[in-house]
Formats: sequence, structure tokens, C-alpha cells
Amino acid sequence: MSEKIYDTVMVGAGPSALAAAVYTTREDIETVLYEKGVIGGLAAITDKVDNYPGFPDGIEGLTLAGHLEKQAERFGAQIEFGQVESIRSDGDIKTLVIDGQDVKARSVLIATGSDYNKLGIPGEAEYYGRGVHYCATCDGAFYREKKLVVVGGGNSAVQEAIFLTRFTTHIDLLVRSTIKASDVLQQELQKFVDDGKITVHLATTPNEIIVTDGTFEKVTATKDGEATEFNADGVFIFVGLKPNTEFLGGSGVELDEQGLIKTDIHLETSVKGIFASGDVRSGATMQIASAVGEGATAALAIREYLDSMPHTEAAPALEAVL
Amino acid sequence: MSEKIYDTVMVGAGPSALAAAVYTTREDIETVLYEKGVIGGLAAITDKVDNYPGFPDGIEGLTLAGHLEKQAERFGAQIEFGQVESIRSDGDIKTLVIDGQDVKARSVLIATGSDYNKLGIPGEAEYYGRGVHYCATCDGAFYREKKLVVVGGGNSAVQEAIFLTRFTTHIDLLVRSTIKASDVLQQELQKFVDDGKITVHLATTPNEIIVTDGTFEKVTATKDGEATEFNADGVFIFVGLKPNTEFLGGSGVELDEQGLIKTDIHLETSVKGIFASGDVRSGATMQIASAVGEGATAALAIREYLDSMPHTEAAPALEAVL
Repeated sequence: MSEKIYDTVMVGAGPSALAAAVYTTREDIETVLYEKGVIGGLAAITDKVDNYPGFPDGIEGLTLAGHLEKQAERFGAQIEFGQVESIRSDGDIKTLVIDGQDVKARSVLIATGSDYNKLGIPGEAEYYGRGVHYCATCDGAFYREKKLVVVGGGNSAVQEAIFLTRFTTHIDLLVRSTIKASDVLQQELQKFVDDGKITVHLATTPNEIIVTDGTFEKVTATKDGEATEFNADGVFIFVGLKPNTEFLGGSGVELDEQGLIKTDIHLETSVKGIFASGDVRSGATMQIASAVGEGATAALAIREYLDSMPHTEAAPALEAVL
Repeated sequence: MSEKIYDTVMVGAGPSALAAAVYTTREDIETVLYEKGVIGGLAAITDKVDNYPGFPDGIEGLTLAGHLEKQAERFGAQIEFGQVESIRSDGDIKTLVIDGQDVKARSVLIATGSDYNKLGIPGEAEYYGRGVHYCATCDGAFYREKKLVVVGGGNSAVQEAIFLTRFTTHIDLLVRSTIKASDVLQQELQKFVDDGKITVHLATTPNEIIVTDGTFEKVTATKDGEATEFNADGVFIFVGLKPNTEFLGGSGVELDEQGLIKTDIHLETSVKGIFASGDVRSGATMQIASAVGEGATAALAIREYLDSMPHTEAAPALEAVL
């Protein structure tokens, strides 16, 4: 209803948006973030973050998320809960429909991240981060000299299984049907199979993840119709990534073949004034450090964009609320 | 002399290289960093870092640099002091000449940063970070409702002076000869001059920065041959950036017109196997968060590059030292 126009609206309140908000608000760019789930995103539900630079002994994901939130709020970021349903751009003004209400902004940052696809089996959600993992770069190093189960048969499953062999003594690779990875990856995989480092189990569907008295025990599965099980110290699941971009239909924001947002070098999307950063962006690494860095870079691009607009002084918008 | 070949050599040990080293070493990629100056780079000599995400109340630059160093070393990064004089690429092997000695590597990360050009006047070095600044995004917010002197007449000086008006009550812009900024920026500047927010002083050369009893007092200058002075709470100097890329002559690594290193989206330079991240990269933001994020991203690209090489197992190189 109101004629209020924000300088920038950020969709999502994970590490990338929170980092961007530290930058924009510190420069008096009026900023509101809309989060539909958890402030801090995937970081907030990560047990231990070992590789976010600045914390030599690692830091709990929830603690890091709290730091990021506090820092953004210190400079005046406003964080709201709400589901963004659509975005449209009418020249210099962007309109977001959030829980059925119109919200207007001069610029938008999309930092909604991506979710890992789940198997949906018992034990998977309960032991997330404590035996059940979706990111080899993040958590592989916790499994030095250990035995793992890896689930998946696509490019990323095969690539990450090969990567994980640098830590593990042995990997059972469970593939629901047949391996879909590229020929090059399959040839590479064969070397690890020949060396006895990876055993491939085709036509094998995981049923349950069993943890006994806090110790990871095994993954039960059905192989060719028969029950079987795989003892291990943990399981890594690579069955795809779901970028949170479904609300972009009709926005004109271009996506790549995986549904991730395409950006230019300044992190601007195909729609002028709409930017993207973090794990929702094409080329994303699923690393907090990269997401945070891109958030900072995007914030500078947003400032430059706002400065280049006609009648862009932030002042009127600010005064309207005061 | 030795036939030792590192998996990766990083040139520089600032935030970007240290972040990259956290990632590579945590994945058992044998990594050595060569630093010619200060570990932690510009961050280490920054008084207070207010916008590195994760530290809600800010953190001393030296403390942050120490954290980054400790974290990289925790996973096995080796940090050496030495000046890299040249790099050449012979197919899959890169040879760096460091203090006259050959060092060989399968991959290289260049993260040598850029230095701000200095005026070279009394007071400038002594009060760096405590009244004397080179980065408006980093330190502008410390000057809310304050009076500043800005030095420079190029695009970045004019752009940053305009940016700083969002904090300051008044800015004296000292220009040695005439303004060299683009027409668009000059027109924009004129509005702030008309509003009385910026006063431009042409043919004005700063002579000394005066701080009395710990309080910033003024900048003395010569204007049209006569001594003059400008009272203020601080000075921002924008007289250019010097990327640390002089050792790249003959390497084949392409630079942009400012001497910054061109990279593709995976942060690889024009030479296969040589990567660049942080403030030495074309498009750099001079922000620690961005430099750290790019370090993480570059490390993942380096891993992928090493994995794609024939006979790439890290093992042989590692065993050679054990």
C-alpha cells in the first residue's frame, strides 16, 4: 500500500546476504532482508565450520551465523521473515511480492542459496553433520583413515568419491541404477576401483542410516531386491542440488541449465539492478567463505548501481521512515 | 637443485593466499607460500577491520591476520619469506625464481595484492589508519558528521569524495593540477560543489599531515605557490593503486590496463595452471572479505586443475620429502 521504496531488498539471510548487508548498511544504504527459513542459512545448521577463514580452530555453524547476523544488525540491517513469491522489474523500480504483499526497491540481491537433495530415509536428517554429509570439501577432512559410504551415480558423486579417497581407507559407492558420470570420470573411477580404494555397487538403494550409541554404524540397502548393509564411519550423499530460484519465474532473470542464476563479473543478473551472490549463483562453490566474499563484492556493485541512478540519493527513502 | 615439485606455490601471504592455503592444505595439497613483506598483507597493518564478516564488533587487522596465519598453518601450510623474481611455465611444471633459486610447482596462485600509492609527505606513514586513509569503503564510516580532506583528481578520487559525503559535513578536495575524472563524474561532482558539501582546490599540493596530541588537526599545502592549510578530522588519499605484478614480465600472464591480472570465472589466468585471487586481480574490490572468498574459490579451482593433470596424485611429491 505504502509508497515506501527501499534502496535494496535482499532475498535470503544466509552468509552471503548478511555479509552484503554489513557493507550496504554501513554505507547508509537502507537494506531489508527477507528470510523464509533460518537466519544464517545452511551455515546455521552446520555442526562445525572448519574452513571459514578467521577462526583457526573452527567455529560452530550456529555461532558463526549469529556473529554475521549481529554484525549486519549493528549497522542497521532489518531482517524480516517472509517468503518471496515473485519479482518484477519496472524500469528503475523492482517489485517483490512477499507473503502476498508488494515490497518496492531500487535494487535487489538474490542470495537464497541452494539446498542439497535428500534421500529421505530414516537417520538422514537426525544425523546431518554427525555422520551424514553433503559436502566433501567441507567435511571430507574429518574422515582421515576412515571408511565411508558414498551415495550417487552422477558426475558430482563420482568426482567427490574420488576426492574423498585422499582421506579414506575405503569407500563403498552406492548407485541406484547405473553410473551416469562422464566417460572421463568413469575411466578415472576405474583406477580407484582397480586399486581397491572404491567398490561400486550398482542397482543399490539405501534404506536407513544406523547410528548406535552416538557411533555411526552402517547404511542398510536393497541390492538387486535383496537386503544388504555397508559398515562405515559416515556417509556422503551426492544426489543433486536444488537452487532456490523457483520464485524467479517471469522475472526475466536468466538461469543456467542447473537452475542457478547467471551473473556477470559484477554479480549483476540479466536484469539491470538485480544482483545475485553465494550458492544460488552459477559457478557457486557451496563454501561460506566464497558466499561471504561474493556478498561483499555484490554490495559494492549495488552501491555503484544506486549511485549511477538518476535521483538516487538514499536520503528521501530514509527520511520517509523517520 | 633438488627435483622437488610442490603441488602449489602461492605468491604472497595476505588474506587471499592464507584463505586459499586453508583449503588446499586441508585437502593434503602440499602448499608453500612466499611472502616478501608482512604476513597478512595490508590487513596486518590495518588498525581496525570493521566489515570482515564474522566479527560483529570489528577486529584489529593484526589479530585477524594472526588468525588467518594460524589456521593455514594448522592444516600444514608452509610460509617462507622470499621475493619471487619471475615465473615461467614449461607445460605442466611452473618454475619460480625466488631469491635467485628455482622453485618448482604443478600450480601457482598469485595473491600479491596491490599497494596504494603514497604522497610521501611527513605524517602520512605515521598516522596510517589513525587519520590517514586510502579506502573509503573500509574507513569512511568512521567519519560520520566529520570534516575530511580528500587528495587526488582522478576518477577514483572524485568518486570516493562523492561517496564520502554521505558521512561527512564537508570535504576539501585537493587536486595537484586539474581534475582528470570523466565528464560524468565531474558533472556529478558539480552538484556537491553547488550544495556546499565539497570544495575543490586546484593547483594545490599537500605538504604535511599534522596531528597534535593524538588528534588529527590539519593538512598543510601549497596552493598557487602560497602556503595554506585545511583543518579536518582526517584525510583520504586517492592517487592510484600499484598492483604487485612487476615479477610477471615474461611469464605470459595477461594484465589489464591498470596492471591487474586478468582471470576467467574460475580465477585462472591466461596461463594454464596459474591462478590469481584478491587485490591483484582485475576487478578486485580491495576488501578482505572478497579477497578471502576468492582465495577459497581459487583453491577449489586449483584442486580441480591438479586432479585433471596426468599422474597428479599428490603422493609422490609428498613422499619425496618424508
